[in-house]
Amino acid sequence: MDIKVPRGTQDILPSETGKWQVVEELIRETCRMYQYKEIRTPIFEHTELFTRSVGDTTDIVQKEMYTFQDRGDRSLTLRPEGTASAVRAFVEHKMFGYPDQPVKLYYMGPMFRYERQQAGRYRQFVQFGIEAIGSADPAIDAEVISLAMSVYQKAGLKKLKLVINSLGDTESRVAHKEALVNHFEPHIAEFCSDCQNRLQKNPLRILDCKVDRNHPLMATAPSLTDYLNEESAAYFEKVKEYLSLLNIPYEVDPNLVRGLDYYNHTAFEIMSTAEGFGAITTLAGGGRYNGLVEELGGPASPGIGFAMSIERLLLAVEAENNKWADLSTLDVYVIGMGEAAKKKAVELTYELRNNEITAEMDYLDRKIKTQMKSADRLKAKLVLVIGDDELEKQSAMLKDLATGEQQLVPFSTLIEQVKISITTQVEAKEQ
Amino acid sequence: MDIKVPRGTQDILPSETGKWQVVEELIRETCRMYQYKEIRTPIFEHTELFTRSVGDTTDIVQKEMYTFQDRGDRSLTLRPEGTASAVRAFVEHKMFGYPDQPVKLYYMGPMFRYERQQAGRYRQFVQFGIEAIGSADPAIDAEVISLAMSVYQKAGLKKLKLVINSLGDTESRVAHKEALVNHFEPHIAEFCSDCQNRLQKNPLRILDCKVDRNHPLMATAPSLTDYLNEESAAYFEKVKEYLSLLNIPYEVDPNLVRGLDYYNHTAFEIMSTAEGFGAITTLAGGGRYNGLVEELGGPASPGIGFAMSIERLLLAVEAENNKWADLSTLDVYVIGMGEAAKKKAVELTYELRNNEITAEMDYLDRKIKTQMKSADRLKAKLVLVIGDDELEKQSAMLKDLATGEQQLVPFSTLIEQVKISITTQVEAKEQ
Repeated sequence: MDIKVPRGTQDILPSETGKWQVVEELIRETCRMYQYKEIRTPIFEHTELFTRSVGDTTDIVQKEMYTFQDRGDRSLTLRPEGTASAVRAFVEHKMFGYPDQPVKLYYMGPMFRYERQQAGRYRQFVQFGIEAIGSADPAIDAEVISLAMSVYQKAGLKKLKLVINSLGDTESRVAHKEALVNHFEPHIAEFCSDCQNRLQKNPLRILDCKVDRNHPLMATAPSLTDYLNEESAAYFEKVKEYLSLLNIPYEVDPNLVRGLDYYNHTAFEIMSTAEGFGAITTLAGGGRYNGLVEELGGPASPGIGFAMSIERLLLAVEAENNKWADLSTLDVYVIGMGEAAKKKAVELTYELRNNEITAEMDYLDRKIKTQMKSADRLKAKLVLVIGDDELEKQSAMLKDLATGEQQLVPFSTLIEQVKISITTQVEAKEQ
Repeated sequence: MDIKVPRGTQDILPSETGKWQVVEELIRETCRMYQYKEIRTPIFEHTELFTRSVGDTTDIVQKEMYTFQDRGDRSLTLRPEGTASAVRAFVEHKMFGYPDQPVKLYYMGPMFRYERQQAGRYRQFVQFGIEAIGSADPAIDAEVISLAMSVYQKAGLKKLKLVINSLGDTESRVAHKEALVNHFEPHIAEFCSDCQNRLQKNPLRILDCKVDRNHPLMATAPSLTDYLNEESAAYFEKVKEYLSLLNIPYEVDPNLVRGLDYYNHTAFEIMSTAEGFGAITTLAGGGRYNGLVEELGGPASPGIGFAMSIERLLLAVEAENNKWADLSTLDVYVIGMGEAAKKKAVELTYELRNNEITAEMDYLDRKIKTQMKSADRLKAKLVLVIGDDELEKQSAMLKDLATGEQQLVPFSTLIEQVKISITTQVEAKEQ
């Protein structure tokens, strides 16, 4: 009997969760500054939601979804990304009627894709994403991008590259699609069967095929940029103008197409340029999806958003050798020697915790020496020792582990004295 | 085309997520005080984990699991509870070898049970739970219970009832099991087919059958309490002693058995006694599981834990008419009139946010009057207006929405002045 964590997934252990909490708090704070509010949608959705939004010719829908029937014979799918659910909720709860538009949402939680196992890729991974739905102002494209950049900067990242592109509006895309079909059709037999299927249905998807990426026709494929109509080109100019205004450096990459069907106009990715970060350098990606709300049954509402991987954010921080605040501090280790003192120790530990003082004690009836070792290992600031002598005097021996000093303190003033000793020690350290 | 949230699940909307964040932060803080550290396990596990731990005669395993095959033909199940995963991780990562024992873990996240739909029950729900593994000290049973009570008290709950029982050790349970079989066997034909199956395999499960709960033999069934051996009884006495020491009131209920197979010794539930809270009053439940680590392939390690529903915690807070802190505050609403001023507004909004000031602006090119209404609705503290006049003077008009006062402030000192105005307004309100 040997049950392991399912293949492609991971446990995040107590020694690691501290930095996850720091990042998540940093993200919540940034969203609060920008006035994006959290939405929580279920872990699974009706499968149809993803086939309709992400697109049924994408790799995600064709190969990577965790799809199953529930006991009521509905086809459900563990969400592979967050935008479809957020937009589904926007429509279902009629958020287009909210007095304040655009509606600005964020989400943070696990997503699921059955991908080939490789370093840095998990089948369950955590994404943070935002969606601004209800405005077609290029200024909000810049806001969305700037929020992502702010998160990375607050996390201490300096080696970042922002790449943007425009996928244009429907008219521009139809013209580009025709050009793509004409470009690939004569040689389509040289491409994989997926690409052959994509040719008529969605030739843009050929450009991000992992199998055919080195085919010479890829490099010479017509670029969307050359097919943007006037309006799309003007919109893209405005977005770039706003980014410059905010001093956010960017590069334009005409080959950036993103692997989901719902994007149009602005598309962007943020990469880490840190050395040794590995093959997958993309930290976040997003773009505009002006048709998606309508596609999912709502009134025409323009939208834009991004998603970032928390796992890769943490890896990027490591690659730049940044450190996280250590949340695992211990104020007091309480030691009770003998049965009566043990009871007092239980009581005191409880009281300390109720006074917002982190406290720990022994639950293995170990010797005082071993308990002292625990206190050291846990980096306790103070140790409280209670034996029969102390108990008789209704006091505890308070030992400062930084200075080694100790003093007998009556139970009646113990909480107060502990607070003073902690403050003194913290202040001494800061000097 | 009309895709809804899957039956039995819910969206938590932006107007609701604020209180979830407050509760979760409160829980993290409490765990920090008690030195429980977070662990994050995957959303799904190998199905066998739950059949072996929760028990294959339980309702959860027999009727309520979301089980499916992945693309690699593994049988996976969306976790119906958190203890099995935490113990699986304890064994897999050899935490029994950690220098500090017991290992104290907490988790918080979605769980999944395919239950009949009813008010207050969802098929996806959020549980917070803790596990202390590696100590058989009755003092830690009290610690675990006290942590749960602390969370409720910090959330402002006053109408609480703690119910405890002892399920005894293996010897006691074998004796009790025999008594149960003798009690039910002569009349087993009157019971549901599930109970008939349970009779030999696990007669204790008959006691929490939802179908047969009113059968007269239920009330007269032999109580575990009468079959506790000396050691089990002494252990239970100690737990009660520690609870009294911490001034935590409790009731003993000999019928409390919990719906999972892995429990022994201490079992407990915490209920809300608030009027109008509804039929399901249990907020949290837990107990000791001294055999579970061994059952899942680890060395014999005693454990104890609980799980609480966040949804029910929030309902209980409402039932007691408590209020949550309002996190949705807005410091500054920025209005730019005309194209050049709009650009300045974008820039200023970005700068404010980078200075930890919550800021919002218009992305719909609305009139100044409509934007002022937005500022009011969003309860902005201040409004910044920039028109051509202000732009010429390199200044913004700063309006205090509490006093109605306004002043022209140069861009160069704007951030500073905004901070002062916010502080002044907050202090005036507090007086």
